[in-house]
Amino acid sequence: MSQPTIKHTITKVDGEHRVAVDDVLAVEEPCEIRLGADSIAVTMRTPGNDAELAAGFLFSEGIVGAEDIAAITHCADADALHPENVVEVRLAPGRSALRDVRRNFFASSSCGICGKASIEAIHVSTLPASPGPIIAASDLVAMMARLSSRQEVFAATGGLHAAAIFDREGELMVVREDVGRHNAVDKTIGHALLNERLPLDDCLLLVSGRSSFEIVQKALVARISLVAGVSAASSLAVQFAAESNMTLVGFLRQATMNVYAGAERIA
Amino acid sequence: MSQPTIKHTITKVDGEHRVAVDDVLAVEEPCEIRLGADSIAVTMRTPGNDAELAAGFLFSEGIVGAEDIAAITHCADADALHPENVVEVRLAPGRSALRDVRRNFFASSSCGICGKASIEAIHVSTLPASPGPIIAASDLVAMMARLSSRQEVFAATGGLHAAAIFDREGELMVVREDVGRHNAVDKTIGHALLNERLPLDDCLLLVSGRSSFEIVQKALVARISLVAGVSAASSLAVQFAAESNMTLVGFLRQATMNVYAGAERIA
Repeated sequence: MSQPTIKHTITKVDGEHRVAVDDVLAVEEPCEIRLGADSIAVTMRTPGNDAELAAGFLFSEGIVGAEDIAAITHCADADALHPENVVEVRLAPGRSALRDVRRNFFASSSCGICGKASIEAIHVSTLPASPGPIIAASDLVAMMARLSSRQEVFAATGGLHAAAIFDREGELMVVREDVGRHNAVDKTIGHALLNERLPLDDCLLLVSGRSSFEIVQKALVARISLVAGVSAASSLAVQFAAESNMTLVGFLRQATMNVYAGAERIA
Repeated sequence: MSQPTIKHTITKVDGEHRVAVDDVLAVEEPCEIRLGADSIAVTMRTPGNDAELAAGFLFSEGIVGAEDIAAITHCADADALHPENVVEVRLAPGRSALRDVRRNFFASSSCGICGKASIEAIHVSTLPASPGPIIAASDLVAMMARLSSRQEVFAATGGLHAAAIFDREGELMVVREDVGRHNAVDKTIGHALLNERLPLDDCLLLVSGRSSFEIVQKALVARISLVAGVSAASSLAVQFAAESNMTLVGFLRQATMNVYAGAERIA
C-alpha cells in the first residue's frame, strides 16, 4: 500500500552553510481510473482514499450517477506493474455511463476540465443551485480554522492541498488532502457518495487554495451551493457561481473574507 | 482581445462590517489548441501569449519539434463563438507530429499529464539532462526575488502562478503568469522556442509555487537541468529529477533553500 508521505534526504542550504537533513515529501503517483474495462482517466494524485477519488471524479464529471456504482477495487491483474495505482469501478447491473466516455478522457493532479471535446462543452451541469444554508461569517472563519488544523500531511510536507465538507451546523463531514486541488475535492465528494450522503444541499465546501471554475462546478454537481477558499477565485469561477446562483467566498482568513457572489448566504 | 484581469465588485466582510468594493480578478478562460485541423487540447488559461502557450505545450509534451512550427494564429473561422480562445498551429511543409496525437488529448489549467494512454506512458522523454550551469546559492535567491517583483498580475489579484527562465549569468529571459502552473511554464518554453532560443542547456527554470513531476519533465524536454520553486516538490518530481541527473530546489526563500537532487549544481 502506498503512503501519502515519504522520507528523503535533502541538502539544506542556508547562506554559506549546507547540511544533509531528513525531509518528508508529499507522495505524487499516477492513478488510472477504469470504468468497467475502459481506461477513463490518469490523474497524478497522493495515494490514499482512491475509491473516494474514483467515485468523486466519475460523479462530479457527470459520468456516473450516485446510485450507479456497484464496486470499486484496486486492479486484480496479477501482471499489473502497479496494481495499487489502478482503480476499477464496476457499475450495478443495468446501469451505464451517463454520457459517452471515450478512451483518453484524462484528468490531472489539479484539473477537471479534461475530456471536454470543445470549449462549448465544458459546462458539465446546468442544474440550478439549491437554496442551501445561510452561514454566519464567524462560523465560516471557524470552519476554515478547523480545516487548517486538520491538514496533517501539509503540516509535515508543506506541499498539499486540502478540501473539506461541513454541514450547516458546522460539523465536519470529511477532510482530504492531495497534491492535486481537484483530487482533494473529488475525494470529499466521493466520500459523501460512498456514505450515501448525496445530495449535499445543506453543506459547504472549503478549499485550502484558489477556487477555479472546475471546483465550483464540481460543488454544484454535488448540490453544494456555498464554496469558500483561502485564496483568490478566478474570473470564470466567479462568473459560473453568479450565473448558477451559488455563493463563492475567497481570501477567507482570520475575520475577513471577500464574497464574490451570493452574499445573501453569509449572515 | 481578452485581458489578463477583470474588475468585479465584491462584498468585503470584516467581522460585523460589510462593504461593496471593486476588486480585480485573474481571468480564467478555456483555450483550445489545434494542430492543423485536429483539436489537441483544451486548457483553462489566463489570456495572453497564447502562441507561446500553444508552442510550449506542443513542444514540451513531445508532440512537435522545435523546428516544425510554421505559423500560429487565432481561429479565423467567422462562425467561431470565441475565436480568441482557439489557437491554430500549422506545421511546416513535410513536417508531421512526432507521435500519434489522437483527438481528446486534453490539458488543463494546472497539468501536463493529460493524453498519456497508460501509467507506463507518462514519461515523455528519456533524454539525459545536460551538464547545465553551476549557480551560486545567493544568485538563485536573487533570481527568485526578481521573479517575485515581476509578478504583476499576482500583485493585482493574489491569484496567479508565475514561471521564469534565467540564463547562467542571471539574466532574465522571460517571465509569464497564468492561473495554471503548467501554462506559465509552457508559455516560458514557448517563448524560447518562438525566439529560437532552444535548447536551454545554459538556463534555469524558476516557478512561484510547487514543483510537480510534470514541471520537471517539461524542463528536461527543453534541456533545462536546474528547476527551483518557492514551495515544496512532490515525491515523483524528486525521483524524476534524481533519475534524470537534474537539480531540483524547493522552498527557495530569503537565504535558505532545500536541494532535493543534484546539489552539485549549487555553489
